[in-house]
Amino acid sequence: MSTVVQTKVAVPGATEVYPHRGCVTRRCRNERHGHRSGVVWLTGLSGAGKSTIASAVEAELFEAGWLITVLDGDTLRAGLNSDLDFSAAAREENLRRAGEVALLLAEAGYVVLATFISPHQAGREAVRRVVGDDFHLVHVRARLEDCIARDPKGLYRRALAGAIPNFTGIGQAYEEPPDADLILDTSGADVETCRHTLAGFIRERFAL
Amino acid sequence: MSTVVQTKVAVPGATEVYPHRGCVTRRCRNERHGHRSGVVWLTGLSGAGKSTIASAVEAELFEAGWLITVLDGDTLRAGLNSDLDFSAAAREENLRRAGEVALLLAEAGYVVLATFISPHQAGREAVRRVVGDDFHLVHVRARLEDCIARDPKGLYRRALAGAIPNFTGIGQAYEEPPDADLILDTSGADVETCRHTLAGFIRERFAL
Repeated sequence: MSTVVQTKVAVPGATEVYPHRGCVTRRCRNERHGHRSGVVWLTGLSGAGKSTIASAVEAELFEAGWLITVLDGDTLRAGLNSDLDFSAAAREENLRRAGEVALLLAEAGYVVLATFISPHQAGREAVRRVVGDDFHLVHVRARLEDCIARDPKGLYRRALAGAIPNFTGIGQAYEEPPDADLILDTSGADVETCRHTLAGFIRERFAL
Repeated sequence: MSTVVQTKVAVPGATEVYPHRGCVTRRCRNERHGHRSGVVWLTGLSGAGKSTIASAVEAELFEAGWLITVLDGDTLRAGLNSDLDFSAAAREENLRRAGEVALLLAEAGYVVLATFISPHQAGREAVRRVVGDDFHLVHVRARLEDCIARDPKGLYRRALAGAIPNFTGIGQAYEEPPDADLILDTSGADVETCRHTLAGFIRERFAL
């Protein structure tokens, strides 16, 4: 987030120069923690299992000494993005900010597990451009009928009753990503398998 | 940023429950890194020395093994807050988002050195409320004439020429904080002294 290099400081009444020899670049942080930093962006329908898998992988890799965290839509909606509603423009802005925050965390040394439905290819591509290197798109894929059956937050029930306009999968299409770096099929595999696959993927992609 | 506790997952075609026993709370992260996390908010005039002192402290404590980072206004303006101008409302929103991002980083285990002019008491109090515990306000204080003499970014020259309306200290007042937890007087002390004082303050306040 900040780079410390040869900062000159002129103090009034004197002309001292204070060179800071510290090195707190992203690379320094990566070397400290033993792995690269970056963003693993989990996209998929509500109920596909994004948060569940992300939390499981976070716990596994944290225990293994990694600097890793989950950035999820609900947390952002409760704070940073509490000024945004669910209009198309606001959802786009919600995603833009999520990408910028994910980048800040990556610059600070974190592997960020970002869990956002992010239904549109254009929005996901915009985030990929902002984050730049070390961005990996993971499609957490599940059949819509499975997600409706799980309905962990009761949102499909409300959407199907017409109470949530534009709910992804019901009032609005989910655009399958053609550029996923990894696909986790939660209609065909259990959480433990997906956790194992994603943790292995991260260990490989974020190796120094 | 996320708490992993007994997450139940029903997989279609089965009724398995997958309890995640991981513990990735803020407290877990603090114990891992050996210090509490939170926000050190540096307020003061442009040119007072906020960024210089923050970078020096970041370098010192990083070398000492701390999870610490600088969050500065220019970085946010270039990314997350690139949609905001310098109107009164936009400057307020700039600060609100800065506080929310600082909180996210604190939840993720960081000591955040947030460097923002933040001229208004109301804005600083709003950030203090958002961050909650482990928020410490540091007033980086310098005489206006010293800041004008330093003018590291050439902004005072432009503001005095009328090119930057509402520039703090010229077209707009800086409200001295009555509630500073620490005051660093850079008109009276050199950078090394301020670095030493702030690093000591942080070591004490963020001790586990």
